[in-house]
This record gives sequence, structure tokens and C-alpha cells, in this order.
Amino acid sequence: MESAKNQHLVPNFASMTVAQLLAALASPDPTPGGGTAAALAGAMGTSLLVMVAGLAKSKNNTDEEKTALANARAAIEPITSKLTNLADADSASFDAVMAAYRLPKATDEDKVARTQAIQSALRGATEIPLETLRACADALAHARVVADCGNRSAESDVGVAIGLLKAAAAGAAANVRINLGGLKDEGFKSATEAETARLLEPALA
Amino acid sequence: MESAKNQHLVPNFASMTVAQLLAALASPDPTPGGGTAAALAGAMGTSLLVMVAGLAKSKNNTDEEKTALANARAAIEPITSKLTNLADADSASFDAVMAAYRLPKATDEDKVARTQAIQSALRGATEIPLETLRACADALAHARVVADCGNRSAESDVGVAIGLLKAAAAGAAANVRINLGGLKDEGFKSATEAETARLLEPALA
Repeated sequence: MESAKNQHLVPNFASMTVAQLLAALASPDPTPGGGTAAALAGAMGTSLLVMVAGLAKSKNNTDEEKTALANARAAIEPITSKLTNLADADSASFDAVMAAYRLPKATDEDKVARTQAIQSALRGATEIPLETLRACADALAHARVVADCGNRSAESDVGVAIGLLKAAAAGAAANVRINLGGLKDEGFKSATEAETARLLEPALA
Repeated sequence: MESAKNQHLVPNFASMTVAQLLAALASPDPTPGGGTAAALAGAMGTSLLVMVAGLAKSKNNTDEEKTALANARAAIEPITSKLTNLADADSASFDAVMAAYRLPKATDEDKVARTQAIQSALRGATEIPLETLRACADALAHARVVADCGNRSAESDVGVAIGLLKAAAAGAAANVRINLGGLKDEGFKSATEAETARLLEPALA
């Protein structure tokens, strides 16, 4: 029953229309929020990069450039569905945090269980945007090849893609950090903050 | 017949599912491209701002802050549908440019007509992203109020919204400039470049 219930709760934004997605983002409900929007903006970025990397009439590329472009396309393509899944997982993880905060706190046992549930949920709500940040940083690393070897006529598409991936990376990092603030596991906190900073620096360069 | 044909050609991205939109962006077809993705990223940004500006349980705002927040919400809300319409118009305007380039150029008359059609289409493909830039700059001006008076718990949502709107504004400006490069009307070019620079500076500040 629990898994059936959870399946019902996990959203599927890829199957929504764009209009439905925008209405859901604008609604007063806390989810979907910035984490989901960031992941989907990143997915628009990777989709644009796949378009440019796959253009048939490229400029007079050398064989090396063609191979680099094909490798970049192969690396970027699966990131789109990873990011749409992370968009869903981000909302689900934040819903879990709110559900944990709503647990009873009448007895000492309640309080211990609630604190543990909140810590566990906050950890999940940190790991999901960290995964989004990793995916965006990965896409941005490959985007340089698309910018260098891609069709010149699609230059502004690459520029928009990079801008969206940078905004998505920065947004994901902000969500990692906001949820990290509520965690007590100092080892996890310092390791996660270090990875966030390490990923963000080249991503935003 | 012409208008019926045009109606058929104008896409409606808001009615697509997110998965269909991403597949369309990733396809080798030149449209939808960066201009459409930028406008839709901006629409995600305005939707997030509407959510935060409309949160019932705001912090202890003064009456002045509540009014400012309500005014910001009223100003931002219509920008979402403006941006989704611009996402459609951006693809249509770029399709018109490509159609103009495909016109016959066998005779001198053909060549004159083709040049005029290209200039007219490029002007349209400049005006649409300029309108996107205006809409994003407008939303960003109101976003400051949402950041200042909005619910603190939604701080990262506002941060993501501003990041997406900045990326959208920068992407729209890049599209204005790339199409402006092909135009011959020097008066329009200098006026449009001046407005683009004027809008972009505070938007990206």
C-alpha cells in the first residue's frame, strides 16, 4: 500500500502540458517550486544542445571535430530525461520534508521519531538538487564542444542553452544549501557543501 | 486562405506536454530554438514569482508591504501568458525568415521581392525577442518587491525565478542582436540596439 500511495504522490511533470506546468508553478502550493523549475530549465538547455550537436549541415568540421560533436551529443542526450526525473523527485522530496514536519510531537518518542524523519527527509531534499547540479555541470562541460564545433547559425541556441544550464545549476545549488542548513550530520554537510562549491565554480565560469 | 494557413503554421507550445516540448527543442528542426526556450524559461520564472507573491502565510508584513506584494503579483501574472505567446511567435517569426530565404531568385524582380521579404521577416524576428526582453525586464523589476516582501521560506524559489528571467532576458537579447545583424534599416537597427542595451543592463544587474 505504501508504495502504491507513494507512486500516486510522485508527480510526472513531463506528461503535463506546458500550460499545466506553469499553472502548477504559480499555484500557492509549495511544490512544484524552484527546484523543479531549475531542473526543467536545465532539460530545455540539454535539448537545445542535442539539436545543435545533431545538425546535419555543420560547417566544414574536421573528422576530430565531428567525433567530438557526436560524443558530446551522446553524453548530453541522456541528461534530459535525468533532469525531467529530477524535476519530479525534487517536488516529491520537498513534499516529504513537509510531511515529516507535520508528524506528531506529543510524546518524547514522537519527538525523536519526528526529528529523525525530518533529518532523513532534509537529506533527501539535499541529495536531489545536488544530483540536478551534477547533471547541469556535466552538460555544461560538454556544451563547450558544441559551442566550439557546432553550426555557427545555431550560435544563439547554444548561448541560450548555456544560460539556462547555468541558471539551473545556480538554482539547484541554492536548494542544496537551503536544505543543508537544517541538517545535523556535520560530515555530510561539509562534504556536500564542498562538492556543491566544486561543481558550481566551473559551471558558472 | 492565407490566414488559415498561417494559423496552421503558428505552434502552440503551451498545449504540448513538457516531454513533447523537449523533444521538439532537441529535434534537428531549427524551430523551436533558443528564442522559444528563453521565453518559456521566463514564463517559469514569472509563475514562481506569482506563487511567492500570493502565499497566504507571509511573514509579518506591513500594510504597505502587502500592497506592494499584491501590486507586484497583479503586474507579473499577465506576463506569463505574454511569454508563452511570445514563445509561439518566436518560432513562427524564425520560420518566416527561412521561408523568405527560400523564395525564388531567378529574375531581378524575384531578387527585389526576396530581399524585401527577408528584410521584413528579419524585422519580425527582431521585434519578437525584443518583446520577450521587455517582458522579462518588466518581470525582473517587480521581482525585487517579491524578494524583499515575500515569504522567507520561499527565498530559493525567488532566486530561481530571478535566475531564469535573467537567462531568458540575455537569451532574448542575443536573438535580437543576431537578427538585427542582417537588417539594412540603420535607424531601426540603432534604435533597437539602444533599447536592447537599456533593458538588459538593469535586468542583468
